[in-house]
Amino acid sequence: MKQKFYQYIQNLQDTITSKLEAIDGKATFQQDLWKRPEGGGGRTRVIENGAVFEKGGVNISAVHGALPPAMQTYFKVKDCDFFACGLSLVLHPKNPFVPTVHANWRYFEMYDKEGEILDSWFGGGQDLTPYYLFDEDAIHFHRTCKTACDKHDANFYPEYKEKCDSYFWNAHRNEARGVGGLFFDYCKASEAKTMEDWYNFVTEVGDSFLDGYVPIVEKRKDISYTKAHRNWQEIRRGRYVEFNLVHDKGTLFGLKTNGRIESILMSLPPYVQWVYDHHPDKGSEEERLLKVLEHPKNWL
Amino acid sequence: MKQKFYQYIQNLQDTITSKLEAIDGKATFQQDLWKRPEGGGGRTRVIENGAVFEKGGVNISAVHGALPPAMQTYFKVKDCDFFACGLSLVLHPKNPFVPTVHANWRYFEMYDKEGEILDSWFGGGQDLTPYYLFDEDAIHFHRTCKTACDKHDANFYPEYKEKCDSYFWNAHRNEARGVGGLFFDYCKASEAKTMEDWYNFVTEVGDSFLDGYVPIVEKRKDISYTKAHRNWQEIRRGRYVEFNLVHDKGTLFGLKTNGRIESILMSLPPYVQWVYDHHPDKGSEEERLLKVLEHPKNWL
Repeated sequence: MKQKFYQYIQNLQDTITSKLEAIDGKATFQQDLWKRPEGGGGRTRVIENGAVFEKGGVNISAVHGALPPAMQTYFKVKDCDFFACGLSLVLHPKNPFVPTVHANWRYFEMYDKEGEILDSWFGGGQDLTPYYLFDEDAIHFHRTCKTACDKHDANFYPEYKEKCDSYFWNAHRNEARGVGGLFFDYCKASEAKTMEDWYNFVTEVGDSFLDGYVPIVEKRKDISYTKAHRNWQEIRRGRYVEFNLVHDKGTLFGLKTNGRIESILMSLPPYVQWVYDHHPDKGSEEERLLKVLEHPKNWL
Repeated sequence: MKQKFYQYIQNLQDTITSKLEAIDGKATFQQDLWKRPEGGGGRTRVIENGAVFEKGGVNISAVHGALPPAMQTYFKVKDCDFFACGLSLVLHPKNPFVPTVHANWRYFEMYDKEGEILDSWFGGGQDLTPYYLFDEDAIHFHRTCKTACDKHDANFYPEYKEKCDSYFWNAHRNEARGVGGLFFDYCKASEAKTMEDWYNFVTEVGDSFLDGYVPIVEKRKDISYTKAHRNWQEIRRGRYVEFNLVHDKGTLFGLKTNGRIESILMSLPPYVQWVYDHHPDKGSEEERLLKVLEHPKNWL
């Protein structure tokens, strides 16, 4: 399974970066291969200063070895080995009318000292963070998520949509990071699902990513915008930074377990502002976004 | 003691904000009074878009009530009441040759349910974060710290300078946030020091703040700079954000104990950049700064 899934995300990285380069038309992804001293490594691909994408990363990694102490504590196990691989992407478009997107699909195996698999699971999801809200874009993104989910289990979309809203909650701001999508974790073999079933589900979701995001980019990337729209985008990007550095388990885990810092923090936006006690004008589009973020809604 | 120290920081806030407004010459501090639902409140003063200070806050607060659950866990106590007051300041100058500065002086009391004081202590410090390093500025700042310390105890400066270097260590970057200063905490009554002695020490340090920082601002605020200098400043401000949101205990505590978010996050810089895998040119001034941050030095 680990070879099969790692092969899958290698191909998916190629598919996604090729498509994004074609859309951007100006910038290309810079590739960095890196090795983890304790075992494994990754292939980081970052795009910067594009015509469409101001900054973004589409990274894969496959790491293994002794389970780091912080993860032993987290999983309440001792003296285990592990293997983890995944694809993580974040795209920060230049145009404030194009939403930021994040996605991650991953597979994890844990072994005893004899090398027997103790446990294994898939996790992942994708979520959309608009600066200006086009309801039809949120609906399209969620519909793509639901279509992929429904091919596997009618319960998946409602369950994982809900989990996404809970996970990407910027608690200290009392608002969602964005308009959500899917979030799932610890997808393990059970009476109802084999690991093969989960593989088929996760790869279905991964394959649907471009269908969910690209039409939105195409539709919004050439809308003209002002400095005021940019300021709002940069202020909202500040909330993205706050979520990732204060609440995001993946980021904090990476920072505390000697991950490759530049690959982890590629998720941070290029230009960001913090303005003291900023409030958008009453009745503005900016205020309408905030109201939706404060009360996540069902888009479908 | 709590009345006396709160009176002191009220006066100090006035002294510091008046002086900073006089230096800035363009912007003034906007004052927000706020109340904490569970008891107490604060007086936040923020300056933005000044001629010298691009963003900054000089805030005081005095809060009291039942010790919040997160603090009960932290202090390993149950069912206590508390009182805490302090002054916190962060100044982000516009000119990249003027360093950012942070300071905080605080007093804490903990009570049993009969209202008897169980424990009380002072804490605080000040530290300097340059974007371009003038050794003479770091030396001046540290000398002011040492002069204030030496009036009270010859051991204070070396001990608190060291603690400052340890505390403001951006562990995931393997570098210091800045060139340090002083950091002290849990300054309690002992055979050697009364609370009155500690009050005299902390207020001596607070009184020395403007002497440490203002001459540096005056000397550097009119140096001409380019877009490249600004970019470097904004990239380094990103590290400031990373420290405050990932490592700073005070910030995280505030975010997790229902503090006033805008007063806590006034510490975040106004314009910030994240560039993937940025490295300054070999032999540049930017690289020289990094080398010093990677190996904190003794300035005196």
